[in-house]
Amino acid sequence: MKQSEMLIPTLKENPADAEIKSHQLLVRAGYIRQIASGVYSFLPVGRRILRKVENVVREEMEKIGAHEMMMPALQPSELWKESGRWNTFGSELMRIHDRSDREFALGATHEEVITSIVRDEVKSYKRLPLTVFQIQNKFRDEARPRFGLLRGREFLMKDAYSFHASYESLDLTYQKMFDAYSRIFKRLGLNFRAVIADSGAMGGKDTHEFMVLSEVGEDVIAYSDTSRYAANVEMAPVITTYPASAEEPKEMKKTATPNQKTMKEVADFLGHDLDKGLKSIMFKVDEKLVMAVTRGDHEVNDVKLKNLYSASMVELASAEETETVMGTGFGSLGPVNVPKEVEVVADLAVESLVNVSCGANEEGSHYLNVTPGKDFQVSQYADLRFIKEGDPSPDGEGFIQFARGIEVGHVFKLGTFYAENMNAMFLDDQGKNQTMVMGSYGIGVSRTLAALVEQYHDDRGITWPANMAPYQVHLLSLNPKKDEQRELADQLYDQLLDAGIEVLYDDRKERAGVKFADSDLIGIPLRITVGKRASESIVEMKERMSEDKSDLEASKVIDYVEEMYSR
Amino acid sequence: MKQSEMLIPTLKENPADAEIKSHQLLVRAGYIRQIASGVYSFLPVGRRILRKVENVVREEMEKIGAHEMMMPALQPSELWKESGRWNTFGSELMRIHDRSDREFALGATHEEVITSIVRDEVKSYKRLPLTVFQIQNKFRDEARPRFGLLRGREFLMKDAYSFHASYESLDLTYQKMFDAYSRIFKRLGLNFRAVIADSGAMGGKDTHEFMVLSEVGEDVIAYSDTSRYAANVEMAPVITTYPASAEEPKEMKKTATPNQKTMKEVADFLGHDLDKGLKSIMFKVDEKLVMAVTRGDHEVNDVKLKNLYSASMVELASAEETETVMGTGFGSLGPVNVPKEVEVVADLAVESLVNVSCGANEEGSHYLNVTPGKDFQVSQYADLRFIKEGDPSPDGEGFIQFARGIEVGHVFKLGTFYAENMNAMFLDDQGKNQTMVMGSYGIGVSRTLAALVEQYHDDRGITWPANMAPYQVHLLSLNPKKDEQRELADQLYDQLLDAGIEVLYDDRKERAGVKFADSDLIGIPLRITVGKRASESIVEMKERMSEDKSDLEASKVIDYVEEMYSR
Repeated sequence: MKQSEMLIPTLKENPADAEIKSHQLLVRAGYIRQIASGVYSFLPVGRRILRKVENVVREEMEKIGAHEMMMPALQPSELWKESGRWNTFGSELMRIHDRSDREFALGATHEEVITSIVRDEVKSYKRLPLTVFQIQNKFRDEARPRFGLLRGREFLMKDAYSFHASYESLDLTYQKMFDAYSRIFKRLGLNFRAVIADSGAMGGKDTHEFMVLSEVGEDVIAYSDTSRYAANVEMAPVITTYPASAEEPKEMKKTATPNQKTMKEVADFLGHDLDKGLKSIMFKVDEKLVMAVTRGDHEVNDVKLKNLYSASMVELASAEETETVMGTGFGSLGPVNVPKEVEVVADLAVESLVNVSCGANEEGSHYLNVTPGKDFQVSQYADLRFIKEGDPSPDGEGFIQFARGIEVGHVFKLGTFYAENMNAMFLDDQGKNQTMVMGSYGIGVSRTLAALVEQYHDDRGITWPANMAPYQVHLLSLNPKKDEQRELADQLYDQLLDAGIEVLYDDRKERAGVKFADSDLIGIPLRITVGKRASESIVEMKERMSEDKSDLEASKVIDYVEEMYSR
Repeated sequence: MKQSEMLIPTLKENPADAEIKSHQLLVRAGYIRQIASGVYSFLPVGRRILRKVENVVREEMEKIGAHEMMMPALQPSELWKESGRWNTFGSELMRIHDRSDREFALGATHEEVITSIVRDEVKSYKRLPLTVFQIQNKFRDEARPRFGLLRGREFLMKDAYSFHASYESLDLTYQKMFDAYSRIFKRLGLNFRAVIADSGAMGGKDTHEFMVLSEVGEDVIAYSDTSRYAANVEMAPVITTYPASAEEPKEMKKTATPNQKTMKEVADFLGHDLDKGLKSIMFKVDEKLVMAVTRGDHEVNDVKLKNLYSASMVELASAEETETVMGTGFGSLGPVNVPKEVEVVADLAVESLVNVSCGANEEGSHYLNVTPGKDFQVSQYADLRFIKEGDPSPDGEGFIQFARGIEVGHVFKLGTFYAENMNAMFLDDQGKNQTMVMGSYGIGVSRTLAALVEQYHDDRGITWPANMAPYQVHLLSLNPKKDEQRELADQLYDQLLDAGIEVLYDDRKERAGVKFADSDLIGIPLRITVGKRASESIVEMKERMSEDKSDLEASKVIDYVEEMYSR
């Protein structure tokens, strides 16, 4: 393509709102433009690389027997009410009325639509299993859209759904999907980990997220320093054991802690380490008030709390609710003398503590020498805290370290959640009516583009990997006003196209400095410059990721390019 | 693909709401399913053929130097307010609020978005012309969605936009687009006409619609029986000349016409032909009241009336408005003694009439012996009527005939409408600020699919043309329980795939009758049946469009298929 005819508007400066590299570079290099907060247009070179990602995804989906379809963005609210998600999805679900005031959801995902189709069309085990996918824009009204393509409100997604007569069949397809996802992200050249994730409240079983490792990732991954174990940090169980204390329990006593707000302030004021205090936090678990108690140096993991109660919602109790039932605010809570309507649960680490401090449920007061079992009762000890770096890995091999990741894929055993709510049944081989078992599988296609740029860039711009670039060659004619330069470049352009090589040809009447800077920004793996030595039929070859340049006879260019891309 | 693993739900009966063949057959053959009124899912075989149409469109767009991009469905209302279409688009534009109550339009087209991008990024004539396209779902809240994919509310469209420094440059791109569209619809195998269409009130100049000829089309095309002239019926000028009458004007007189409502009733009652009466209709042209007068056998064309006044809106005056100003209702209107606030215009055919009848602006009364010029004045005679079959063709060659068409494409010289409203300027080669000139070009991709089926079907199902079918071969194993049939079919399936032939393999455990009926419904051009003679390695070949069957040695199948598809 001739750059003079294309819309590739490059910018010298980073956009003011772009905090991370992929956002900055995709805008600066002319791949995307923001239309509204979290809503982007893909300009031609952006659309092109996006299509390459799409094609890899499509190929791998077809290889495992998933069939492409296309479902609409407009989804009748009735379907979402059947599944229950019309309410539970909350304000992230965009809603719209048509001219006769019928309500629609704007497709955030398509479980409801595909389940309604399959329940109407598939009645027998003979038609199962069945796997379909689509690649299409999705809509989610994020509270805080940010980071460019990483967290948008309209974004390109591949979503796949599978339907089964049994959990065994789901397991097989899940594994195929898992393997296909691994191949996809490998083909894209991404450094990623498949991590154990939260299957949430939807009755799901196994679920893995595919995380691209990156400092800008919004998720924290806990991984073993020796094994392949990796989990979303909130999903990693803690297997640390806590030896019994040798201390004798003393008598509990109250002490004033005026103006000491945080755990750290209280511990310093009382002159003990953080781990000699109790942290007490009030939650609303569905409609029940629960005080969760951990050691002062630990953090409550609300996913674990949610799973402990098989709850559908866990949130912090409000200041008002806390005040009403406890007669005091957040800063002075403790598990001693808690009213009956509050259930106290504690992390396993709490059980072996002796003579620790905790809030006295009275503004500016704490108890000292508190010992669980003696001074307060706990309805249940459980693994309730976040894993920490240095904890033993849950698989028993090595110790936990943390990394940040960008979630680019998600495979999920949904089980019968949708099929039950939406009545998707089939006749099994005995003629009995059974509920279908489902899986769902997503890849954030446009987000993957951002993840690629996070992993492939340098100070000057994007550095696409060879097999995943918008073009294979960036051909520059440095001064197209000079006949010999323009003619040699034109000739090379035709030769490259004839050889089936994808080439972006900078034929613009711009200064050499602008062309070099734009080329580095756009990041095509190989640059071929036709400059001063055009009269000798000599061009300059430079790979984007290296600093080396070399001169080459124009007649050898095609061989060079083909050799480079066959490596 | 193995049919047993695919979602191709065929139906014996037509869906109750499906009035036309393409709607009936696309549903019955398992290509589409309705999700809501005017909203469809494309099942795998439907998605597949849709992608083939997309690919033809994409190839031809790229050939003429249009670059693919992807703009969002969520479009800030501010952009639509700048262009003015936030109001003028009316209730067809779907509107949505985000969680912070910002208004968005759901993309019906993308002139606003692309204009906002180009005005921000393109400042110089050096970057023009520029042509971009996208293939993507559009949203329009049709008042009466019907006819399946022909008039939907969410549909797949290719839209392209071009930006120019001059009208001459627009003319060149327009012609390239026109030619590309002709190639696209020809490659798709459609019988179509490019017709002159209404450029509307947007200040546009030339515009053509690409119409697939079909009895179910919603548009009427007026075409010449001898030349290539074709126009949307409302656009065809009337070049008929009307010889002066030899009759002497008589004295006008009033007569009672009790209970005679229609033109026909009045003419019969008065004992003259339809063309000896005047038809007078009251319009509101923008805010002005206009009485349009035609011969009794002619019909007023409101597009011509609108163009005559360069109006932005023409509608019938209400009964109340008419009553107020004329003192009578619709049935008794006439141009004699019309109050000053009403302007009277008449079709050219009226000018030469003598001694005709017309309403007396009094319930149940008509005038006889009315002669224009003598008995009433006309502010303007103009071509105001619809062309009729038998009228001379506007290009002077032959006579007009009518046909119905389905609009599948539209090319449009927008001119400066959007650029002016949205301030899209550039510096010309003299350094002067100029307004950009634009074109827009659409193809209804999903609608094209319906148009194809309207032209390619018979009593038993769809009959895809060879180069535009979801698969090239439908391989049937009639009784897969018999080893020799299943094995031969499996073997042929592998051979066909290895030869790069697209094959749908009906390996289902269904009766032969079901398989044959489904195969005819789905409509793949070549059927290969492995049946009783499998033991002799003989299969049956049948082309979908023909009744002829022939037996063939299995070893010759690949050659046969390759030969057929190279024809």
